[in-house]
Amino acid sequence: MAKIAPLSGFPELLPEERVVEREVIASLSRTFELHGFANIETRVVEPLDRLAKGGEIDKEIFVLQRLAAEPGAKAELGMHFDLTVPFARYVLENAGKLDFPFRRFQIQPAWRGERPQEGRYRQFTQADIDIVGRDTLGFHHDVEVVRVMVEALGALPLPPLSFQVNNRKLIQGFYRGLGIADVTAAIRVIDKLDKLPAEAVAEQLVEQAGATPEQAEQCLQLASIRVGDTSFVDQVRALGVEDDLLDEGLRELAAVIDGCAGVVSERVTVEANLRIARGLDYYTGTVLEVFMSGYERLKSVGGGGRYDALASDGKTTYPGVGVSFGVSRTLIPLIADGVLSGSRKVPSAVLVAVTDEDGRDSSTAVATALRARDVACEVSADAAKFGKQIRAAERRGIPFVWFTQADGTHQVKDIRSGEQVEADPSSWTPPEADLRPQVLRAGQDTGSPESRTR
Amino acid sequence: MAKIAPLSGFPELLPEERVVEREVIASLSRTFELHGFANIETRVVEPLDRLAKGGEIDKEIFVLQRLAAEPGAKAELGMHFDLTVPFARYVLENAGKLDFPFRRFQIQPAWRGERPQEGRYRQFTQADIDIVGRDTLGFHHDVEVVRVMVEALGALPLPPLSFQVNNRKLIQGFYRGLGIADVTAAIRVIDKLDKLPAEAVAEQLVEQAGATPEQAEQCLQLASIRVGDTSFVDQVRALGVEDDLLDEGLRELAAVIDGCAGVVSERVTVEANLRIARGLDYYTGTVLEVFMSGYERLKSVGGGGRYDALASDGKTTYPGVGVSFGVSRTLIPLIADGVLSGSRKVPSAVLVAVTDEDGRDSSTAVATALRARDVACEVSADAAKFGKQIRAAERRGIPFVWFTQADGTHQVKDIRSGEQVEADPSSWTPPEADLRPQVLRAGQDTGSPESRTR
Repeated sequence: MAKIAPLSGFPELLPEERVVEREVIASLSRTFELHGFANIETRVVEPLDRLAKGGEIDKEIFVLQRLAAEPGAKAELGMHFDLTVPFARYVLENAGKLDFPFRRFQIQPAWRGERPQEGRYRQFTQADIDIVGRDTLGFHHDVEVVRVMVEALGALPLPPLSFQVNNRKLIQGFYRGLGIADVTAAIRVIDKLDKLPAEAVAEQLVEQAGATPEQAEQCLQLASIRVGDTSFVDQVRALGVEDDLLDEGLRELAAVIDGCAGVVSERVTVEANLRIARGLDYYTGTVLEVFMSGYERLKSVGGGGRYDALASDGKTTYPGVGVSFGVSRTLIPLIADGVLSGSRKVPSAVLVAVTDEDGRDSSTAVATALRARDVACEVSADAAKFGKQIRAAERRGIPFVWFTQADGTHQVKDIRSGEQVEADPSSWTPPEADLRPQVLRAGQDTGSPESRTR
Repeated sequence: MAKIAPLSGFPELLPEERVVEREVIASLSRTFELHGFANIETRVVEPLDRLAKGGEIDKEIFVLQRLAAEPGAKAELGMHFDLTVPFARYVLENAGKLDFPFRRFQIQPAWRGERPQEGRYRQFTQADIDIVGRDTLGFHHDVEVVRVMVEALGALPLPPLSFQVNNRKLIQGFYRGLGIADVTAAIRVIDKLDKLPAEAVAEQLVEQAGATPEQAEQCLQLASIRVGDTSFVDQVRALGVEDDLLDEGLRELAAVIDGCAGVVSERVTVEANLRIARGLDYYTGTVLEVFMSGYERLKSVGGGGRYDALASDGKTTYPGVGVSFGVSRTLIPLIADGVLSGSRKVPSAVLVAVTDEDGRDSSTAVATALRARDVACEVSADAAKFGKQIRAAERRGIPFVWFTQADGTHQVKDIRSGEQVEADPSSWTPPEADLRPQVLRAGQDTGSPESRTR
């Protein structure tokens, strides 16, 4: 049989790499739960008419169909391409059984048939938090979801992250107060600032949004404001535009920046960045994107915002605010670059050696005694020479090997230091740092808080 | 917009139901890790030619294709229908990077386009453990995987489970020693004993396997042996058939039954049941199925066995032994029947009340102090009357509500008992049993070991 090639765009992890993803997901889940977010999972498929709305994303949708379907049968199901569309449908479908505001987190794969590249995969895992209200949803939840995600990502051993926050009311109010003819077009054009030079954007503002060259200049000045505190308010005021919606946007953005002051750190910063627009139409207030230091080429590794109509059944509208974090987009490049790795290939902290096959039961009894105190361990696969059993532990990264002596006493060897001591299977426990596989960050010590997620 | 109907065969859980699935998966994972099984996840798709082998399963395969694919383009990818096929491919693809014997657990959905019914879904989650060797794999691993799954399922709050174990060598050796012409056909026929009456099976043994009526009768006698200890060995011997392979099968099955003696309980029993064959060809030794008391209509909720060639690349063969547990097949009927439920809809143990919107920051400070000691909590969504805030907690099943008094002192109320006491946010902790949502089993007390998975 020919060598099996990986499928492009469908990355898989080796066991020691999966340790990283698993611990990151466990850490995220813990933070979300501490803040009262309930976990849900949605099915992977949605009716195609709920997914395909005529937008850019349509051509990336994967459809699902039985192999035994009639030839030419029309596909009715598609794989979800994010977690927002299925969540909105879940809220509508179960509205009568949910309590609002409904706070949920969801960590699942999504699928897009796009061209694979670093950080972009055909199957990728996302971690989303959202708070959804029925009819209304207090603005303070905007502050809350951003703060929760800052805290959640701050607990991970990632390179420094930057939350870049803006507010659609601020932009819209500013453009309106300025007298720009087509505010929506202006937002779409400003969103191109990371791809086009400022002059080109200014030209498009004139051509596509009906701005005068002076107005376009002021739009660019607004977009150039980027600060880590609320001094942006005075900088915007200095541009001399007056508008009620602008005032509201300034207040809201200032509240988000202020509200995060207690959770920012060297590892996660939060800035007001007035060029962030997020092209999608449904955002109506807070908008944000998350960038990772040294990995700006991935573009944002997370993002989100406020949407006044996450879902609607015609009678009732469900406003929401949420942030999404790209688990695969972030971790797979970091793992590939050796920035993050798992400390071992197996959960076992101890390999219990087997002296001869007749003595396997006594080795199993030792393992059972250790497991009773939550020490993960495995019994050696065969009664090879001790040196070979130790090398088997070494290859897997298992730190300790346990020996039962002929006289019934026990010894445990730390194979990193070579130190071997007498031990009692009913009381011996490895150091806390050795109990579970850990996430290691290149250039940092094992066991420091920086390099551990639990 | 019309009311959204669920998609048949794609069950989804409400947050309080998801608590059950989540805690069950966490408990299974913990047991598997204690025994040194490493977690992996495989992509959801495989090349179609790896999935479709001309068997019965083929017509249930879902294919995946881009919506934008050329009309008439041939589908190349299918969704995996179990976790064994992708695992075998993963082992071959990564053989050079894995350490053998390789012990892994995998808990993921799989997809089958079959007709939905109770316990059978188009998307369903399975939990698999396997140990795979390169070239060889010690028989003791058969004992080990069965024991690990007994222990893992015994830690769950399920109705009583029964592991029914047999051995293909035992059956094949018996048939061969008996002189049956077509041993493979005989196994296939005996596998129908749960659907057809004994006489019909005896007739088919004569017609399809070339047995004499006397041989058919002896096959049925073998299949009627079912005991919870190793007394089956003498019962088989009493049938007077002699064969080396039979001897080996008897030894192996006795070792599995003996090896599990230390982990069986009232909740999980292990029996030798000599009619268990499992139709699939690739099993070569130990075979087993798991049944749940009161839910025999689901057929088996788990199963597995030994396969001497889980995977092969032509040069190297990888023998394996594993057991699979149907998470969705088991839990969804139990949840629907009200046998299992989550103790609350949210992770929060405490709702921190808000006296007025200006005081939200002090409520947030209380929540932050509680979270620092791993107490999950949420701050009230609005400064409604206290009675309304308490009812909001009640609806979600949150046991405690926290009040900050005008004088800066704090009180916490257990809303189940109504008891309200002074408390310090920097030291107060709820009882252990209230810290996390729990899995409740109908008819059992909250908080007993029986009704908790963590």
